[in-house]
Amino acid sequence: MSTEKKWVTASDVARLAGVSRSAVSRAFTPGASVAPETRRRVEKAARELGYQVNILARSMNKGRSNFVGLVTAGFSNAFRNQLIGPLTHQLARQGLIPLLVNAEDSYQQAPGLRDLMSYHVAGIIMTSGAPPLSLAQEYVARSIPVVIINRDTDLPGTDVVYSDNVDGARQAARWLQQRGCQRPAFIGEQPANFSTRQRRDAFCQALTNATCIDVNGSDYHAGFNAVAQLQTYSDIDGVFCATDTLALGLRDALSQHPSLSSLPLVGFDDIPEAGYAARQLTTLRQDVERLAGEAVSLLIQRMEDDQRPPVKKVVPVQLIARR
Amino acid sequence: MSTEKKWVTASDVARLAGVSRSAVSRAFTPGASVAPETRRRVEKAARELGYQVNILARSMNKGRSNFVGLVTAGFSNAFRNQLIGPLTHQLARQGLIPLLVNAEDSYQQAPGLRDLMSYHVAGIIMTSGAPPLSLAQEYVARSIPVVIINRDTDLPGTDVVYSDNVDGARQAARWLQQRGCQRPAFIGEQPANFSTRQRRDAFCQALTNATCIDVNGSDYHAGFNAVAQLQTYSDIDGVFCATDTLALGLRDALSQHPSLSSLPLVGFDDIPEAGYAARQLTTLRQDVERLAGEAVSLLIQRMEDDQRPPVKKVVPVQLIARR
Repeated sequence: MSTEKKWVTASDVARLAGVSRSAVSRAFTPGASVAPETRRRVEKAARELGYQVNILARSMNKGRSNFVGLVTAGFSNAFRNQLIGPLTHQLARQGLIPLLVNAEDSYQQAPGLRDLMSYHVAGIIMTSGAPPLSLAQEYVARSIPVVIINRDTDLPGTDVVYSDNVDGARQAARWLQQRGCQRPAFIGEQPANFSTRQRRDAFCQALTNATCIDVNGSDYHAGFNAVAQLQTYSDIDGVFCATDTLALGLRDALSQHPSLSSLPLVGFDDIPEAGYAARQLTTLRQDVERLAGEAVSLLIQRMEDDQRPPVKKVVPVQLIARR
Repeated sequence: MSTEKKWVTASDVARLAGVSRSAVSRAFTPGASVAPETRRRVEKAARELGYQVNILARSMNKGRSNFVGLVTAGFSNAFRNQLIGPLTHQLARQGLIPLLVNAEDSYQQAPGLRDLMSYHVAGIIMTSGAPPLSLAQEYVARSIPVVIINRDTDLPGTDVVYSDNVDGARQAARWLQQRGCQRPAFIGEQPANFSTRQRRDAFCQALTNATCIDVNGSDYHAGFNAVAQLQTYSDIDGVFCATDTLALGLRDALSQHPSLSSLPLVGFDDIPEAGYAARQLTTLRQDVERLAGEAVSLLIQRMEDDQRPPVKKVVPVQLIARR
């Protein structure tokens, strides 16, 4: 059908790196001997081309399907929706195809999440904190690799990849300080998930006089309604919100209060709406392409060696200053 | 795990309808004899409980998996994202699980879409116009049921379900007229997809003096930038936009022009943002639950009888008047 489709092969990498095909193979075989300079050139070329070892043939020999369970928590979170495309893309590059399960749907929870095992999935990627970790343990017990995005855990056999919330919160603090903010506030959902907790803790560590305002949700309405709590503090002059969605709701509410409408705000995620011409929200951009790429890469490495120690990958975030 | 999970069984339906279990079974068996009043009560109870015949056992006997290919076109369209949850939910109720393929991703296009056949999928649901119809024909040629949402086609063996764009456009026209609109405009992407074309044609038929403004996209920015074209017509006093996203972009641009900021606007879809406290966009709500329910129901009926003539289901839309 499509003529532009082209898989990146080890030969492509060898050509770009100016090394032999077998050097590429050795560079991607754990423990194989390869000169440091060769490895550097191979890794650079592989990065440029987006090459990853193709595990499909091997996983088929192991009696596994090329299905990967993609476990989400609903489809209403704009940031998590942004992850689905890159994840599906990265899996497709490996000849893997996602089986979609919504962990927030009680109809799917018990049968869907357990059935993933009987489908002989090659692995599981969880995009949020929704599914209970006990379930991850069940998968791991059956040697099904599990990668969790934006959540930390020390479960053996489970790899995690998450955005650098700590550095992001520090960047947010610096940005507010540079704008002369003396009385900063943090707004986030309580109880907090992993990401919100990391962002809040790092922000309050960087700015020890920060006020923490807890809201009971993470959607637009929670942000919009937070203005009432914010107003109980007369002197707050800058706000870091745990997510863009909260910040966009708060911004809309603030715009109805002339004295507050220019309050500096920082969000987190960089969802599409943050960049809209009329929003122009300053935020910390999560690198969804890289989160997805690392997640699939970790999954594939664990398919090859399910005994290796758990890996944690922290993906940098970038301050996008707007307005 | 989850104790609240509960499948609706034929016995549940029989209990609510006050009929025997076998009467329920007969009511759902094509050609079986059942009294009209019994059928009416069974169908009412089934509707209330959300019961559908469980095809899983039968489809397994036919040598098919319980995978259904869910073919999307990217994940950046807010309305189409709203469909994924209900579709996944309705499939789960039938013991079916979606295999996710992004038809807009060239890596997935050729292998992914064709591979769905070798996975012995029980059926395919396409959520948009992205995949070529020739592909649907290939599926149908292999007796794989295909249901297409929000697109019309007369392909044999392919069922379609779409929102009532014609009635929606007429409601939009009436709403604008009621607000005294004399010089209406329609804004939509050109080339138009099926939904945009239906909305535009019905709107211009209802209001024969309507001006059609073509934009070269369907996203927020296309709507935002449409204000320049709109301004070339000095007398336009009401606008129907093909989608909420276009309308929200246009609204933001209009708000920067005092003379235009109160121009009546109607969107289409009712995406979450349309209901935000600071947006309050009047729109035509597409019933995503029902679109998903009908799509899965049609798929299951065609699994049982792949020779039946193509079915077209039109799902009503509802005007949500805001502001």
